[in-house]
Amino acid sequence: MTSQILVLNGPNLNMLGAREPEIYGHETLADIEAATRAHAQKCGLGVTFRQSNSEGELVGWVQQARHDRAAALIVNAGAYTHTSVALLDALLSCDLPVVEVHLSNIHQREEFRHHSYVSKAAVGMIAGFGGFGYAMAVDALAHILKQ
Amino acid sequence: MTSQILVLNGPNLNMLGAREPEIYGHETLADIEAATRAHAQKCGLGVTFRQSNSEGELVGWVQQARHDRAAALIVNAGAYTHTSVALLDALLSCDLPVVEVHLSNIHQREEFRHHSYVSKAAVGMIAGFGGFGYAMAVDALAHILKQ
Amino acid sequence: MTSQILVLNGPNLNMLGAREPEIYGHETLADIEAATRAHAQKCGLGVTFRQSNSEGELVGWVQQARHDRAAALIVNAGAYTHTSVALLDALLSCDLPVVEVHLSNIHQREEFRHHSYVSKAAVGMIAGFGGFGYAMAVDALAHILKQ
Amino acid sequence: MTSQILVLNGPNLNMLGAREPEIYGHETLADIEAATRAHAQKCGLGVTFRQSNSEGELVGWVQQARHDRAAALIVNAGAYTHTSVALLDALLSCDLPVVEVHLSNIHQREEFRHHSYVSKAAVGMIAGFGGFGYAMAVDALAHILKQ
Amino acid sequence: MTSQILVLNGPNLNMLGAREPEIYGHETLADIEAATRAHAQKCGLGVTFRQSNSEGELVGWVQQARHDRAAALIVNAGAYTHTSVALLDALLSCDLPVVEVHLSNIHQREEFRHHSYVSKAAVGMIAGFGGFGYAMAVDALAHILKQ
Amino acid sequence: MTSQILVLNGPNLNMLGAREPEIYGHETLADIEAATRAHAQKCGLGVTFRQSNSEGELVGWVQQARHDRAAALIVNAGAYTHTSVALLDALLSCDLPVVEVHLSNIHQREEFRHHSYVSKAAVGMIAGFGGFGYAMAVDALAHILKQ
Amino acid sequence: MTSQILVLNGPNLNMLGAREPEIYGHETLADIEAATRAHAQKCGLGVTFRQSNSEGELVGWVQQARHDRAAALIVNAGAYTHTSVALLDALLSCDLPVVEVHLSNIHQREEFRHHSYVSKAAVGMIAGFGGFGYAMAVDALAHILKQ
Amino acid sequence: MTSQILVLNGPNLNMLGAREPEIYGHETLADIEAATRAHAQKCGLGVTFRQSNSEGELVGWVQQARHDRAAALIVNAGAYTHTSVALLDALLSCDLPVVEVHLSNIHQREEFRHHSYVSKAAVGMIAGFGGFGYAMAVDALAHILKQ
Amino acid sequence: MTSQILVLNGPNLNMLGAREPEIYGHETLADIEAATRAHAQKCGLGVTFRQSNSEGELVGWVQQARHDRAAALIVNAGAYTHTSVALLDALLSCDLPVVEVHLSNIHQREEFRHHSYVSKAAVGMIAGFGGFGYAMAVDALAHILKQ
Amino acid sequence: MTSQILVLNGPNLNMLGAREPEIYGHETLADIEAATRAHAQKCGLGVTFRQSNSEGELVGWVQQARHDRAAALIVNAGAYTHTSVALLDALLSCDLPVVEVHLSNIHQREEFRHHSYVSKAAVGMIAGFGGFGYAMAVDALAHILKQ
Amino acid sequence: MTSQILVLNGPNLNMLGAREPEIYGHETLADIEAATRAHAQKCGLGVTFRQSNSEGELVGWVQQARHDRAAALIVNAGAYTHTSVALLDALLSCDLPVVEVHLSNIHQREEFRHHSYVSKAAVGMIAGFGGFGYAMAVDALAHILKQ
Amino acid sequence: MTSQILVLNGPNLNMLGAREPEIYGHETLADIEAATRAHAQKCGLGVTFRQSNSEGELVGWVQQARHDRAAALIVNAGAYTHTSVALLDALLSCDLPVVEVHLSNIHQREEFRHHSYVSKAAVGMIAGFGGFGYAMAVDALAHILKQ
Repeated sequence: MTSQILVLNGPNLNMLGAREPEIYGHETLADIEAATRAHAQKCGLGVTFRQSNSEGELVGWVQQARHDRAAALIVNAGAYTHTSVALLDALLSCDLPVVEVHLSNIHQREEFRHHSYVSKAAVGMIAGFGGFGYAMAVDALAHILKQ
Repeated sequence: MTSQILVLNGPNLNMLGAREPEIYGHETLADIEAATRAHAQKCGLGVTFRQSNSEGELVGWVQQARHDRAAALIVNAGAYTHTSVALLDALLSCDLPVVEVHLSNIHQREEFRHHSYVSKAAVGMIAGFGGFGYAMAVDALAHILKQ
Repeated sequence: MTSQILVLNGPNLNMLGAREPEIYGHETLADIEAATRAHAQKCGLGVTFRQSNSEGELVGWVQQARHDRAAALIVNAGAYTHTSVALLDALLSCDLPVVEVHLSNIHQREEFRHHSYVSKAAVGMIAGFGGFGYAMAVDALAHILKQ
Repeated sequence: MTSQILVLNGPNLNMLGAREPEIYGHETLADIEAATRAHAQKCGLGVTFRQSNSEGELVGWVQQARHDRAAALIVNAGAYTHTSVALLDALLSCDLPVVEVHLSNIHQREEFRHHSYVSKAAVGMIAGFGGFGYAMAVDALAHILKQ
Repeated sequence: MTSQILVLNGPNLNMLGAREPEIYGHETLADIEAATRAHAQKCGLGVTFRQSNSEGELVGWVQQARHDRAAALIVNAGAYTHTSVALLDALLSCDLPVVEVHLSNIHQREEFRHHSYVSKAAVGMIAGFGGFGYAMAVDALAHILKQ
Repeated sequence: MTSQILVLNGPNLNMLGAREPEIYGHETLADIEAATRAHAQKCGLGVTFRQSNSEGELVGWVQQARHDRAAALIVNAGAYTHTSVALLDALLSCDLPVVEVHLSNIHQREEFRHHSYVSKAAVGMIAGFGGFGYAMAVDALAHILKQ
Repeated sequence: MTSQILVLNGPNLNMLGAREPEIYGHETLADIEAATRAHAQKCGLGVTFRQSNSEGELVGWVQQARHDRAAALIVNAGAYTHTSVALLDALLSCDLPVVEVHLSNIHQREEFRHHSYVSKAAVGMIAGFGGFGYAMAVDALAHILKQ
Repeated sequence: MTSQILVLNGPNLNMLGAREPEIYGHETLADIEAATRAHAQKCGLGVTFRQSNSEGELVGWVQQARHDRAAALIVNAGAYTHTSVALLDALLSCDLPVVEVHLSNIHQREEFRHHSYVSKAAVGMIAGFGGFGYAMAVDALAHILKQ
Repeated sequence: MTSQILVLNGPNLNMLGAREPEIYGHETLADIEAATRAHAQKCGLGVTFRQSNSEGELVGWVQQARHDRAAALIVNAGAYTHTSVALLDALLSCDLPVVEVHLSNIHQREEFRHHSYVSKAAVGMIAGFGGFGYAMAVDALAHILKQ
Repeated sequence: MTSQILVLNGPNLNMLGAREPEIYGHETLADIEAATRAHAQKCGLGVTFRQSNSEGELVGWVQQARHDRAAALIVNAGAYTHTSVALLDALLSCDLPVVEVHLSNIHQREEFRHHSYVSKAAVGMIAGFGGFGYAMAVDALAHILKQ
Repeated sequence: MTSQILVLNGPNLNMLGAREPEIYGHETLADIEAATRAHAQKCGLGVTFRQSNSEGELVGWVQQARHDRAAALIVNAGAYTHTSVALLDALLSCDLPVVEVHLSNIHQREEFRHHSYVSKAAVGMIAGFGGFGYAMAVDALAHILKQ
Repeated sequence: MTSQILVLNGPNLNMLGAREPEIYGHETLADIEAATRAHAQKCGLGVTFRQSNSEGELVGWVQQARHDRAAALIVNAGAYTHTSVALLDALLSCDLPVVEVHLSNIHQREEFRHHSYVSKAAVGMIAGFGGFGYAMAVDALAHILKQ
C-alpha cells in the first residue's frame, strides 16, 4: 500500500497567490498541492493536503494522523510556527517523522519569526525555497521512510 | 454605494457590560455597535460588526474582508493583540486601511499588554477612550477614505 | 442543590494514555474524569468535564460558567497555560474561584513552560501529581466553598 | 465660558511642512493649529497652541495649565515622549485629562520610539493619523469633559 | 510502623497569625501543625513539624531526614524558596519524595518570588491554599507512598 | 566666612505642596528652604536655594558653583536624576562634595526611578525622609567639611 | 520611658577598623556604636546595637523587635542587603519604621550591590556617609517618631 | 557547459564518520561528496567539494567562487555558522545563490547553535537530514538556476 | 562665497581646560575653536562655533542651520549624544552632512556612553583624538563637500 | 613553624560519599581531608579542615583565619559559591591568598552554577578534579607561599 | 628615519571595488593604499599596507609590528572588529598607538556591527568616511607621534 | 611507552614574557614548556608543546591528537576560549581527557572573558596560577590516566 504523507498548512496559506502576484508570484496553495502530489507519486507516496486558520483544528489533525494511517507529516504552520506550544505538543506526541517547511527564509525576516516551536518536534527544516520546498520535503521523507 | 467598514472584535469583548457594571460600566458591545453605526451613518459609511473568541475565525474574517467589499477595518483584537502573529499576517496582506482600537490605555496595564502585533499592520492606534474610540476610528477612516 | 465544578482541559489532554503507556501510564482523561467525579461526590460536589484543542472554545466555556451555574473552575489549560492571554482575560472576569492544575511539575520542564498566564487568575496551583491533582483541586475547592 | 484646551507640541514639530514636502506633506504646525481650532469651535471648545524645543519649558507650561484655566491637555511631546520623566511627572501631577497624540504610528518606527512616558499620565493615545489626530483628540476631550 | 512525614518551614513562618490578623487571618503555624497532624493521622501517617529562620539548619534537617526515618518531606521554605541553592542541593540528594507548599500563590506576587529553587527537587507544588495546602500535601504523599 | 551650600532642585519640585495636600502634605519648597536654612545656620553654614525645570540651567548652576564660592552641593534632581548624563558630567567635574537627596524612597517606586545618574557623582544618598532629608544633608556636609 | 532604637548590623561589619586602617579608617563598629548612642541620648532615644554574620539570627532579631519594645529599626544588612529575601520578609511584617544605612555609597560599587531588598521595607535610605550615617538615621527616626 | 556548484564545508566536517560510528554513522565527508556528485550529475550539474578548518580559507574560497566560474554555493559552515561575520560578509558580496546546509537540526541543539550568520546571506536553509541534505540542496539549486 | 561649517558643542564643553589641567590638559574650547577655524581657513571653509548646556537650544541651532546658510555640521553633543532623541530628530531632518566628534574614545568609557543617538544621523564619527578631532572633521567635510 | 592552610567546605559537602556511591563514588569528606593532609605534609604545610551548612559560620571562620594564624585558604563553598556576597566580602577583606576548589566542573552544570562570587576574591580556581583538586590547591598554595 | 605606519586590513577588504561598483564605488584597496601612501609622504611618514582574511595572520602582523619598527598602527579589521578577542589581545599588548578605521559608519548598520573589540585597544575611531578615513588616520597619527 | 600529553596554546601566548616584564613577569612560553616538561617527566609523562595564532590550526591539532597517539590534552586557548565554537567541536569529538588552563583568573577580568567554550569539553579548569597551572594540569592528568 502507498505510504501517505499528511501535509498541514497553517493560517493565511490559503490566500497564497490570490493577492499581489507581482510580489508573491501566481502560485496558489492548490498549485503547490498539485506539484507536491505529482512529485510524491514519482516517489511512490500519497499526499493528503490540508489548510486551516485554526490552531485547534491543526492540533486535531496531528492527533488524528496515525489513526488516518499517515506515515509522516510535512508541516508549514505559518504564523503558528512562532506562537503555538499546543501544536508543538501535538507533534511531540504523534510519533511520526515531521518535516518543517517554510516558503520564505524565516531567518531573514522579523526577529519574532526566527524562533520556531515546530523545530523542536521536527526531523529537519526546509526554508526559503517557495513551493518547491514541499517537494524537497517529500524527497526527505522518502529517504527517511526507506531507512 | 455606501462604503462598508468591517469592525472586528476579539475574545471576551462579547462579555462587555455583562458583569461588574460598577467597574466597567453598563455599556455592552451591542451598545457600542449601535453608537458606532449611528456615527458611521452620519459620515455616510456602513458598519459590519463581528465578535469572536476564535483566533482562526478572526483571521478568516480579515481574509474575506475584500471579498465582502469592505473598504476598511477597525480591529479591537482584545487579548489576540498581544499574541497573534496569524492575525498580523492576515492584516498585513488584506490590503485595506486598518485602525486599531482599544477600550483601555494598554500602555498603562501589565507589561505583556504593551506590545501589539496589530500595530505593525495598522494605519494608527486609538486607545483609552472606551466605546467612544470606535466612533473616533470611524472618523479617522472617513478622513482617510476621502483622501 | 449540589454545587457544580466546571473542569476545563486544554489541547492534547484528550490524547492522554492513548500513546506510549510505558512512559505516560495508561490513565486516560476519561479515567481522570471518573476518579475526579467519584471524589467530588464524596465531597458533595458535582463535576462537569470538558476538553478542547481550541483556545476560543475554552474561552467560551469560561464565559458560560456562571450562566451554567458552575460554582468554581478547575483549569488544566495544557499548552495554552503558557500562551493564552485570551483565556487569562476570560478567567479574570468570570468571578468564580479558579484552581490551576498541571499533571507534571511545569517548573522542571522547558523554560517556556515555567510561565503561566492562568496563574494570574487562579486562587492557587497544583502541579506534578498526575491525575490525582484533580482530586486535590476538588478538595481545595470544597474547602474554599465552605468558607 | 468656553472650556480651553491646552495643546502642547514638543521638539521639531515647529519644522513640520517646512522641508521635504514630498515626504511629510505640506501641512505645517500652523495648518494643524488652524484646523484644530476650527474643529474645537464646532465642539464649543477653545484651543491654546504651543510648541517648544525645550523640555523645561514644556514642563513649565504643564505646571501653569490649571492656573491658566485649561480644562484639559493634548500633548504631542515629539522626541520627549520617549525620554522625559520630567514631563511625565508634570503631567501626573497636573490633575487634568491628558490626551497623547502622535502624527505617525510610533509602534512601527525604531524600537526606542515604541515606549512612551507620556502614556503613563494620559487618558488615551491617538497615533498615526497625521494632523487629523489633533481633531480626534479634541473630540475625545469633548466627550470626556461632557461626562 | 506509621510512615513519618517531615514538614519543614522556612524563615518568618513562625510569625504566622501573630500579627495583622485582619489581613493574614488568625491561623498560627501551631494551628496548621495541629490540622496537618490530624489530617495525616486519618491517612495513617505521622508528622514531624519544624521551623527555622536559618538556611543552614534547614539544610541540616534535610540531610538528617533519612537518618530520622522520614518517608517523605513537605517543604515550605518561605523566602529561601527563591534564594537557597544550598537547600536545593540538600533536597536533590536526600532521595525522598518532596512536596513543595506555599501559603500564597507565589506566581501573583513580586517577580522575584516567581522562581523557586525548591521546585527543581520536588515531585510537585501546591500554592495558594493557605494552611490547607499542608493537608493537601499530606494527601499527595499518601497517594505517592501507596504506589 | 560662612561656608555656602548650594542646594539645587530639579523639575516639578516648585509645585510641592501646591496640589493634593492630603497626599503630599502642605510643605512647599519654600518651607523646605526655610527649614534647611534655619538648620544650616545652627551648623554655621549658609544656604543658596535654586529650582529649575531646565536641565541646561541646572548644569549651568553646577558649573558656576565654585565660581560662586559654594563649598558643597545638595542635589535633588527630581526626574533628571534618572535621565541626565549632562548633569552627571557637570557634577563629576565640579570638584565639590555632592549629597544626593530624594523626598521619597526612590527604590520603592517605578523601576525606571531606581537608577540614579547623580549617584555616580555623589558622596552619598539620602532618600525617603521628605523635606527633612535636606537638613540631614546639611548635617552630612557639615560633618564632611569639618574633616 | 525612653524609646529604644534597635540597630542591626549584618555580616563582616564586626571586622570594621580591624584591618587596613589606611583604607577603611580606624573606626570600629564599637566606635560607631558609642557615637550613635551618644547622639541618640541627645535626641532622648536609647539604642540597642547588634551584629551578626548569620542571616537567620538577623531575621530572629527583627521578629523579636516589637516584643523587645523597640520603637524603630536601623538596619545596615551588609551583604544580606543584596541577597536576603528572608530579611525583607521579616522587616515587611515587623510593623516598625525601618531606616536603611550603608557606610559606602552602594550605587558606586559593583552592579550586584546596587539592588537592595531592604529598601522595599524601609522608610528611607542613607548611604555613603560612613559611621556618621547611623547618627543621621537616629535623627531621621527622632523626626519620624515625633510625628 | 555544465554549471558548477561549489560546496564548502567548515571545521571538523573532515572528521565525519571517522569516530564513534555507532553514534554518527559510518558516512564520511567523502561518502557525502560522492553521493552529492552522483546526484548532481543526474541534474546536469558539476560539483566542487572543499573542506577547511580555517575561517580565512573559507572566506577566500567564497571570494574566488565567481572567478572559478561557480554558478552557486552550498555552504555547511559547521561551527563558523554561529560565529563568523567574515564568512557572512564574503557570502553577502559574492553575488551567487547560496544554500545553507546542516547535517543536524541546529534548532534542537544548544542555544548558541540556534543563530546562523550564514542564513542572512542564503536563499534558504536545509537542516536535519544528514548527508542527504546536500543532495536536496543540489535539487534546490537546480530548481533555482532553471528559473 | 566661503562655505560655512556650523560646529555645535553640547553640555559641559564650555568647562574644557578650566579645571584639572593636569588631567584634561590646558586646551579650552576657545583654543579648539581657534585651531579649528585656522584649519578650516586653509581648506577654504568658514566656521561658526557654538556651545550650549540646553538640549532645546542645540535643537534650535540645528533647525536654523540651513537658514543660516551652513553647508554642513560638526556635532560634539557631549552627554546629549547618549540621551537626546530630540537632537537626533533635528539632525535627521536638517538635510545637511553631519560629522560626529568626541574628544575621548567613548567606546572605552562607561557602558551608557557607548551608544550614540547622533550616530544615526551622521555621515561618520571621529572619536578619541581630543581637540584635533575637530580639524579632522573639517577635513572630512571638505572632502565630502568637494564631491 | 609549619604554615597552616585553612580548608573551608560549604553546605552538603558533609554528605559526600554517604549516598549513591555508584554515582558520586565512595570518597567521603573525611577521605579527602586525610588525602589532603598527607599531601600537605609532603609540602611542609599543615591543614585545618572545616565544614558547615551555615553561611554565617563560614563567614566567621574566614574572619578568624588570620587570628588563627592561617597562611592561606582553600575554599569549596558549595552552593554558597553562587549566592553568598557575605562570604565574598569576608574573603575580600581577609588579606590571605584564597584558592577556590570545586569537585565538579561547574561550567558544565546548570546556568546558575556558572557564576561564582568566591572567584572575585580568589587567586585562582580549580574545578572538575574531584577530591584530588584539594591536593592541587595545596600545591598551588605551596608554590604561591614560596614566592 | 621616516616613521613607518603599519596599516592592517581584515577579511573581504581585498574585494573592494571589484564588485558592484555602482554601489560601493570603483575605489579598490590598492587605490586606498596609493592615496594613503601619498598622503603619508606629505606628513613625512611611510606606510606598510597589508590585508588578510585570516584572523591568525592579522594577529601575527600585530605581534611583529614593533619588531618591524612600526611606529603606529591603522587597523580596519573588517568583520573581525566584531568577533576577534584574539586581535584585541594582540593590539592591547603591542604597545603602539592604534587608530581604528571603518569605511562605513558601523553604528548605522546591523546591531551586531555596533560593537567593536578593536575600540578597547585604540586611541580613537574614524568611521564612515570611506577610503578617505585612512588619510584622516594618518593625520591623527602624525599629530599623536609629534606630541 | 611513555604517555604523551599534547599541550595546545592559543593566540598571543607566544608573546609571553617578551613585553612589559615588570607586569607580566619574565616567564616566556618556552620557560613554561621547559618547566612543564620537567614536571611531566617526574610523573612519567611526555609533553608535546604547540602554539598557534590560528583557530583552524588549533582545530587541526586537536583532530590529529589521537592519530599522534596523545593520551590527553592541556588546552590554554587564550582568546579563542571565549569565541571558538570550532575548537569546542573538535575537543568534544576528540575523545581524550582535556584539561583547561588559564594563566590569569578569567573570572576577575572583563565580562566577555568569563564565558569559556572550552569548558564544555573539559574535565576541569585550572585558572589563575600563571605558568605553574600547566604543571598542575599535568598532575591532574597523571591522576586521571592512572584511574
